[in-house]
Amino acid sequence: MQATEPSDLAMVPFVSVDNMMRLVNRIGLPEMLVGLAGYIEDDFRRWQLFDKTPRVAAHSKDGVIELMPTSDGESYGFKYVNGHPKNTREGRQTVTAFGLLADVSNGYPLLLTEMTLLTALRTAATSALVAKYLAPEGADTMAMIGNGAQSEFQALAMQAICGVTRLRLYDIDPKATEKAMRNLSDQGFDLTACTSAEQAIEGAQIITTCTADKQYATILTDNMVGAGVHINAIGGDCPGKTELHPDILRRADVFVEYPPQTRIEGEIQQMPEDFPVTEFWQVVTGVAKGRREPRQITLFDGVGFATEDFSALRYIRDQLQGTGLFQPLDMLADPDDPRDLFGMLRRSQVDAVA
Amino acid sequence: MQATEPSDLAMVPFVSVDNMMRLVNRIGLPEMLVGLAGYIEDDFRRWQLFDKTPRVAAHSKDGVIELMPTSDGESYGFKYVNGHPKNTREGRQTVTAFGLLADVSNGYPLLLTEMTLLTALRTAATSALVAKYLAPEGADTMAMIGNGAQSEFQALAMQAICGVTRLRLYDIDPKATEKAMRNLSDQGFDLTACTSAEQAIEGAQIITTCTADKQYATILTDNMVGAGVHINAIGGDCPGKTELHPDILRRADVFVEYPPQTRIEGEIQQMPEDFPVTEFWQVVTGVAKGRREPRQITLFDGVGFATEDFSALRYIRDQLQGTGLFQPLDMLADPDDPRDLFGMLRRSQVDAVA
Repeated sequence: MQATEPSDLAMVPFVSVDNMMRLVNRIGLPEMLVGLAGYIEDDFRRWQLFDKTPRVAAHSKDGVIELMPTSDGESYGFKYVNGHPKNTREGRQTVTAFGLLADVSNGYPLLLTEMTLLTALRTAATSALVAKYLAPEGADTMAMIGNGAQSEFQALAMQAICGVTRLRLYDIDPKATEKAMRNLSDQGFDLTACTSAEQAIEGAQIITTCTADKQYATILTDNMVGAGVHINAIGGDCPGKTELHPDILRRADVFVEYPPQTRIEGEIQQMPEDFPVTEFWQVVTGVAKGRREPRQITLFDGVGFATEDFSALRYIRDQLQGTGLFQPLDMLADPDDPRDLFGMLRRSQVDAVA
Repeated sequence: MQATEPSDLAMVPFVSVDNMMRLVNRIGLPEMLVGLAGYIEDDFRRWQLFDKTPRVAAHSKDGVIELMPTSDGESYGFKYVNGHPKNTREGRQTVTAFGLLADVSNGYPLLLTEMTLLTALRTAATSALVAKYLAPEGADTMAMIGNGAQSEFQALAMQAICGVTRLRLYDIDPKATEKAMRNLSDQGFDLTACTSAEQAIEGAQIITTCTADKQYATILTDNMVGAGVHINAIGGDCPGKTELHPDILRRADVFVEYPPQTRIEGEIQQMPEDFPVTEFWQVVTGVAKGRREPRQITLFDGVGFATEDFSALRYIRDQLQGTGLFQPLDMLADPDDPRDLFGMLRRSQVDAVA
């Protein structure tokens, strides 16, 4: 073997955006959302096993870049993700991401993948999984406030996992609502475009807020929210970025992924440090109650947690087998003798000259 | 443009191991070590500008996986790196790494690169840069204890940057020493293979320790170390892994990269929390004195810090221009309308069918 021909040990499968789209289209979007929700649920069930840490964030005036690592002791995963609300003005995504799965026993990467699309999918799958546990019985109508890049995935996950059939869409930018209406027109929903948040939440048992401005916004005020709804608040996900009036939080039972992170990034950053919350893994494992009665307001203060990305990485790795939808990437140095990195470099020089 | 043809915005240049070797061979290894040391020195000089945090480590019984992020406010960089001493028994590297440079203003990645080779180079460049400031005048002999994957790079950096001409090599495994002797035989050194650490340090003004076992080891004891030497201790770099007897640390003036990290990972993890150290950036900027007198023992307790990887990423980005030594990687979703991720996915489906 020549030094310039890396062995299998040195190759990492990489899933490009193009291959991720092929994989989604091959599996089917609703099937994939259901599959992802299953992996995410499994990992919430074995929550105590995970190495958990709030994400490592680098904030700047324009946005944030974050690393989200976790491990279950066998595999290690992390995601790189940015959030830059101004990006859309330059034709860029607000959020882009990629992620890596590695083997804890030797530290070698197992999978590198785009996660911009995958993050939208896992976020939608998580929202719908939580709503499956918390939304009132028979909920079939969702208000979707914020009709950006995540909205269609949220809608389709709620359809596939919770049986939502009616959608009421609102965005401060009517063009975003038009786009979502167009995209969802043939997906089996009864669709209504609304001109205000108030109108959107009429008759909705599930209210999803997913807006992007990095500021303390008030998408919903207390008097707008009736009894017996489930609020899926996923837009407020970094310090200084919230969507709900604090009074709603006081009336609701609030469910979170990982309190140390949510208290920094979620809606509850507006509340005192000891504001009571229930951890979602406790609901999944039966340690805590989810919805207790029909008139209760349940609120998922979702910020996205590293275990959900880990579940998504596991899912992709398992689905990838036999599809060929990846490129082997020569990412790891692989000398014949692992202690001879220098020899590998010198032999590559000889190869190049020969 | 079809949805399946990503635009330039969506492409990230990727430097494979093969391309990194070509780049090193094109620039020349000594020239590259000097170039890297220059970038590292520049970044130590503007130390106060950086967002600094101890690396985020996931420890397991076999090793560690770490993320090392930093930012200078304009660019953001991080490295993924593992350390698994047992790996060599399975034909794998103890340390493998890759890294990413991104634009702080929009969060988009600018460069993805292998860093297994690059880490060995930046570690050697850092060691030699520090020795340039701290080693005694006229130092031309180095003892190299530990003759693994890093040793040749350490030797060549000390040659190119500090004028070291004599090398005394020792490893507990004679095969490692043989390998290093062979690799360095035509590199302009006066080489001596030694059978003990005691023998290796005879007449050496610079002592480099770079051994890999994850344990409290004592490669050097106090009575072995004479006056007036510079110790470059780079093998002790995680909790529970040290190389030097504490008495040496008490006799020496200890220089470190970033105290909050070194107190956890370096030789000084054996010492009390208030053990006095000098930060290397203070020596570079002239705020603190380096070597004060010929008989002083200076000790660099090097563990590797994120800014050094950042410097290396900057260097590679700057050198890459016009070489073609990278592949464009379709890593970022890039819909025509950034809010229309779903539309991009649907159009890719149509393209696939058509």
